[in-house]
Amino acid sequence: MTENILSQVSTPTDVKSLSVGELERLAEEIRQLVLTKVSKHGGHLGPNLASVEFTLAFHYVFDSPRDKIVWDVSHQSYPHKIVTGRKHGFIDEENYDSVTGYSNQHESEHDFFTVGHTSTSVSLATGLAKARDLNGAGGNVIAVIGDGSLSGGMAFEGLNNGAVLGSNLIVLVNDNEMSIAENQGGLYKNLRLLRETNGTAEENMFKAIGFDYRYVEAGNDMATMIAAFEAIKDIDHPIVLHVHTEKGHGYEPATTNKEAFHWHSPFDLATGKSPAGSGTPSYASVMMDYLEAKVQQDDRVVAINAAIPGALGLGGFRSKHPDKYFDVGIAEAHSIAFASAMASQGMKPIVFHSSTFIQRTYDQISHDLCINNNPAVIVIKGATISGSDVTHLGVFDIAMMSNIPNLVYLAPTSQEELTAMMEWALAQDQHPVAVRLPEQAVINRPQTQFDFSLNTYEQLHAGSKVAIIGLGSFLSLGEKVQESLNAKGIDATLINPRFITGIDKDMLNQLKANHDVVITLEDGILDGGFGEKISRYYGADSMKVLNYGAIKEFTDSVPKAELYRRYRLEPELIVADILALLK
Amino acid sequence: MTENILSQVSTPTDVKSLSVGELERLAEEIRQLVLTKVSKHGGHLGPNLASVEFTLAFHYVFDSPRDKIVWDVSHQSYPHKIVTGRKHGFIDEENYDSVTGYSNQHESEHDFFTVGHTSTSVSLATGLAKARDLNGAGGNVIAVIGDGSLSGGMAFEGLNNGAVLGSNLIVLVNDNEMSIAENQGGLYKNLRLLRETNGTAEENMFKAIGFDYRYVEAGNDMATMIAAFEAIKDIDHPIVLHVHTEKGHGYEPATTNKEAFHWHSPFDLATGKSPAGSGTPSYASVMMDYLEAKVQQDDRVVAINAAIPGALGLGGFRSKHPDKYFDVGIAEAHSIAFASAMASQGMKPIVFHSSTFIQRTYDQISHDLCINNNPAVIVIKGATISGSDVTHLGVFDIAMMSNIPNLVYLAPTSQEELTAMMEWALAQDQHPVAVRLPEQAVINRPQTQFDFSLNTYEQLHAGSKVAIIGLGSFLSLGEKVQESLNAKGIDATLINPRFITGIDKDMLNQLKANHDVVITLEDGILDGGFGEKISRYYGADSMKVLNYGAIKEFTDSVPKAELYRRYRLEPELIVADILALLK
Repeated sequence: MTENILSQVSTPTDVKSLSVGELERLAEEIRQLVLTKVSKHGGHLGPNLASVEFTLAFHYVFDSPRDKIVWDVSHQSYPHKIVTGRKHGFIDEENYDSVTGYSNQHESEHDFFTVGHTSTSVSLATGLAKARDLNGAGGNVIAVIGDGSLSGGMAFEGLNNGAVLGSNLIVLVNDNEMSIAENQGGLYKNLRLLRETNGTAEENMFKAIGFDYRYVEAGNDMATMIAAFEAIKDIDHPIVLHVHTEKGHGYEPATTNKEAFHWHSPFDLATGKSPAGSGTPSYASVMMDYLEAKVQQDDRVVAINAAIPGALGLGGFRSKHPDKYFDVGIAEAHSIAFASAMASQGMKPIVFHSSTFIQRTYDQISHDLCINNNPAVIVIKGATISGSDVTHLGVFDIAMMSNIPNLVYLAPTSQEELTAMMEWALAQDQHPVAVRLPEQAVINRPQTQFDFSLNTYEQLHAGSKVAIIGLGSFLSLGEKVQESLNAKGIDATLINPRFITGIDKDMLNQLKANHDVVITLEDGILDGGFGEKISRYYGADSMKVLNYGAIKEFTDSVPKAELYRRYRLEPELIVADILALLK
Repeated sequence: MTENILSQVSTPTDVKSLSVGELERLAEEIRQLVLTKVSKHGGHLGPNLASVEFTLAFHYVFDSPRDKIVWDVSHQSYPHKIVTGRKHGFIDEENYDSVTGYSNQHESEHDFFTVGHTSTSVSLATGLAKARDLNGAGGNVIAVIGDGSLSGGMAFEGLNNGAVLGSNLIVLVNDNEMSIAENQGGLYKNLRLLRETNGTAEENMFKAIGFDYRYVEAGNDMATMIAAFEAIKDIDHPIVLHVHTEKGHGYEPATTNKEAFHWHSPFDLATGKSPAGSGTPSYASVMMDYLEAKVQQDDRVVAINAAIPGALGLGGFRSKHPDKYFDVGIAEAHSIAFASAMASQGMKPIVFHSSTFIQRTYDQISHDLCINNNPAVIVIKGATISGSDVTHLGVFDIAMMSNIPNLVYLAPTSQEELTAMMEWALAQDQHPVAVRLPEQAVINRPQTQFDFSLNTYEQLHAGSKVAIIGLGSFLSLGEKVQESLNAKGIDATLINPRFITGIDKDMLNQLKANHDVVITLEDGILDGGFGEKISRYYGADSMKVLNYGAIKEFTDSVPKAELYRRYRLEPELIVADILALLK
């Protein structure tokens, strides 16, 4: 490039002053900027490379923020961020973390929501549009939703309601022929038919439910997108603009391997190759090894997930056992009811979910699974205090799930225990069982006995005065506290509770004999969590109880170390609290 | 009727031996039976009157339980129950309660799930069908889903996945042109078009996403339904059978007023009239009076609900203010995101939900509403320990919602406090606020001051030794405990906490000076609830804490009085516990 267009562009107003040729050059500069940042820093790549042209065309044609764009998931919003005052977060490596990876109304007046879960944009846009109409304000409202996000039921709820809005609402279906992985389900047959017929097919789900409809084949062509937007700007009724884009457009490794480059950790830009991995085994890989072995032994075992095989480590299983692998698309609610029904027929479904997305299926866990008490198994990954974006926190699973009757939620503390718990979960047929993968390096702790009588805790060391109950990955923290206390002459009891969803009354009663303090440690929020149940149990006794875990709060990319300090999850702080109590 | 066919019919096998003429007479007998029971006992009427013919035709043509029928919501399953061994629950008044109002696998091998929430049948049926295929078993799987339930996003998730099953799956769309109230949304335009074209319209949402499709206009004609089922029995691919039925068929008051007769309390069968109401005001009616007054003062106020205006008392508001009233259909998830977006633009949306159905929108409360901290207001009805069916329990709302950050969940204790809390919620713009309507007779408790500083409790009486914290409707229970203690010479402190989602640390600390015991009372489950947070707060102190509320369990039509005994929610039991502790 001979000239740097981006140096002249900071705001949508700047975008409007460019020629189509300049916009095309700007698109290339933005593409390089995104590629450079993601290759160094990690982030969403494919969705952002696909969205450059229509983003610039949007700002060229429309008048943001009077015209409002709502990004579904918002992992495709980097180009939008770059031209709405936030390019510094992409240009300077030291500023990379100054701009979040998702849309954020606190960063810019051109963003309206903080989102990171899919399939909500049409609902949100319909709300903006309805408020506009009631307020007597003007302007366009545009929801941008990917083809993958359309499989989430809430997208359909939004479309069903948006269709009858009776005023301006533009739903840009950004069809790059991919979810995070391959798309799943019948609706993709329709999208393909529409692509293949240049939008002319009679069978059209959008028109069927009442939307006007237009198709744009060349979604990565600037002039085409400008013309497409100009044609529908200020339209007086709801319309779907079905735009065909290419995921990873402009970067060959990302168009060749769309799934791998949906989101990517740092990589070599020239080759698309990642640095050699550390090879450290994770509990996810332990789980996959177990699954691989189990499916060979028991043909009732199947794996289910909702559109994120990569994040859950299911890629290998998918390749080897396509007949035992079910990706239901972005449809978490369906995944649980589907598994419940399979389990009712003697199958052994294991549903894999990320902690942040299990939130999307509370009612199905309660109503379709737990009331029916079918023995499906759920494996939860990412349930931990972390420095994640606010939209992807994984600390709420215990509060959400463990208060639902009938569910047995287990917290393994070692490779051996994880395997034993899975064996137990799949062998029994009395309850739905969930298993919380520890988010730490794999620990080996061979055991001679696995007795999983419901709600029985394991006493790893019998001491006195102080008892430490360390749940799941926080058993390690408990061991450190135990060591520190030992150095101060206190021989503390150490307990691995194993069951998140129940109280071992016998053991808790026994502790009363020679303990003054019980502490609980959990890698999740305190409110509604595990420790509070211990506090309640001892409420009428003289036993003192301290609960450690996260405060009920939304944190946005706050480093884990800072959170640990804030929550006093450090052995020396905990020991200080205990010693103060024992005085 | 000259002969009683039903006396010969107890099982599906009996149904198969009848002629079409006999089946038609049986349909009339069943209709009369349902009418008689519901008129005396209360229950779902319109949906059951609509489903008689296709239910009998199903059992005539198919071989249940090898062929499996999955009822969505299952409030239309009375005819099915009557011919699958459960007619005693409809014939004899003393046996009315021996059969539940929803499908139940513990009652009959012809039922596969206990369900009462909508939109899950296609997912469940897809799971049954997939298990059948993997097990190498045979048989048909039929999901019966009403047109109203189709607006729930999960129905679409199920259809999207069912469409690509590649084997037998029959989705009977039972289109009676009604949800509980009028249908809402664009999909109903398509259903209407399909009805009007006898199923021949090119625009067909079911075909668009990959289902085969057939339309049956005369869904209440026996011979037609038999022929329709015979034509698709053992079909080798997924098909939608779109059946036009009449809600309330055969009972004129129910066809004339479909919404009122969807579910009905006991009424006069000859006239369709209900006995004169008691006229006792409820908190729902207080809420509606407030809403009516408020909407006159502030044109930013709007009411949103998801398809159950009647159950929420919104019928009058809907009639008077159609422009301020938004029924989004059965789409709870959408309702919250829609409200969040409206609130972000300065509107004052109030979303009305039943406690059991708020479960369907956990993620939207967390992700779309609370992370964004938009000041929408949610009003929760039916949040109480009750003798309800297991599928409609309302005791989980505090555990589910109160552990989500940013949400302010309020528990009013009187008419005046409810009104003041609504005023506060609508005036502030810092937080989403939910308000829990007390489920008890309306109490008047004029107050001179309403100071809703966040998480400040109201001390109604300052005593010593024992402090009673009575949340919401259970403040009344607290007053009774206070009186009983008073009779025993203990002057207990009484506190109305008002805020479910926060701790008044100052007040709790002050109690330490001259109190030994704090008790908490809440009309919901203990696990993850309000009281546990008080227990946690006092964990390191010598204060003894007793939490009262419901055990974490699913109860199915267990009388409230029995539950109160089980949970020790009686003043004398609580007083005995306190006195034992004070010894």
